[in-house]
Amino acid sequence: METAYHPTPRTTPTRYRERARYDRDIVHRILDESLICHLGYLNAGRPVVLPTTHARLDETLYLHGSTGSGPMLAARAAPLPVCVTATLVDGLVLARSALHHSLMYRSVVVVGDARVVEDPAEKLRALHSLLDHIAPGRATDCRTPNARELAATAVLALDFVEVSAKVRSGGPVDEPEDLALPHWAGVLPLSLTAGTPVPADDLGAITPVPPYLTAYSR
Amino acid sequence: METAYHPTPRTTPTRYRERARYDRDIVHRILDESLICHLGYLNAGRPVVLPTTHARLDETLYLHGSTGSGPMLAARAAPLPVCVTATLVDGLVLARSALHHSLMYRSVVVVGDARVVEDPAEKLRALHSLLDHIAPGRATDCRTPNARELAATAVLALDFVEVSAKVRSGGPVDEPEDLALPHWAGVLPLSLTAGTPVPADDLGAITPVPPYLTAYSR
Repeated sequence: METAYHPTPRTTPTRYRERARYDRDIVHRILDESLICHLGYLNAGRPVVLPTTHARLDETLYLHGSTGSGPMLAARAAPLPVCVTATLVDGLVLARSALHHSLMYRSVVVVGDARVVEDPAEKLRALHSLLDHIAPGRATDCRTPNARELAATAVLALDFVEVSAKVRSGGPVDEPEDLALPHWAGVLPLSLTAGTPVPADDLGAITPVPPYLTAYSR
Repeated sequence: METAYHPTPRTTPTRYRERARYDRDIVHRILDESLICHLGYLNAGRPVVLPTTHARLDETLYLHGSTGSGPMLAARAAPLPVCVTATLVDGLVLARSALHHSLMYRSVVVVGDARVVEDPAEKLRALHSLLDHIAPGRATDCRTPNARELAATAVLALDFVEVSAKVRSGGPVDEPEDLALPHWAGVLPLSLTAGTPVPADDLGAITPVPPYLTAYSR
């Protein structure tokens, strides 16, 4: 397998092309680190964007939802044109001039036609991955879905054909004539931080917090 | 002004309707706290979802970008059908059963036709708000845009007509027959945390870190 995706017109940014990345490992890492993504699809000819969790398994992105939800019903009739975008914000970039402010970020855009997963084995694998995406190890530390739950849950698959990442790193880039201005310039790093696990009210007192939560980081 | 938005078919979720919120103050707070949003629009009839920063000013959401970018060019020709979604993730919700896992989240969806801001005063106000949205106080602590920069930057405005929030809070809700299972259940809180500001390489040594960065939180 080639180590990079092929750029296409739809995965070539119109702006900041130097920030585009097509390496598979960069794309994979961003998708794996992002807790959620935003799914774009059409409803009655208008764009809809919904947040959802996802999981990557090799070269496929999986999303899940209720069998009766809008995108799942639409995808059951025919492959659903989608754009799935996952974004990690790593910091604020503060420049001396207003319009050179930016963010440090890493994002991935996957476009294509999503299919409903019909194969029961692939569906179970996807649901397993969706749990382990949230907290690695959780999929084998919970009660697996029963037939009724599986029937009420649909899984969408989007194979990686048209994929790109965009990465903006480093500090501010100011105009030479602005460098002497008195404003502070630099980066404020941002990260997603886990707090202390809060047990459910109905949890038995002797159930220990699993290690994948005590040392949680993305 | 009424304290809530009116639900419409496009702002009524098909699933988990009890999580929908239409209160203006809830919508405003989520948009103000979210550092970024995801903008959905159509390009050649297909959905596109891009991350971008935003700012709310009263009952209008502002986005900005290069004058030559896809959505800005499209919006200049005619109001652009968009869906803008901002999502805050507050934690993981771990249930005993696989399919009762969830996230604690707060999201806002704004749908409508976005217009390019032509009025110079409104444009400057929007750019000011976009900076203060990133770091409150920054708009007056940097060099304001010059004529060339303003000409290269376009601002989109989306008035709040069809707007909804969705809020999922609280711990896991398990089936009664699952409560005795040995799996840990509860919430892992997540939050966006700021690190120590990193000065630009070309920053003079005597420029102090501004207070809006030393005590940064969203």
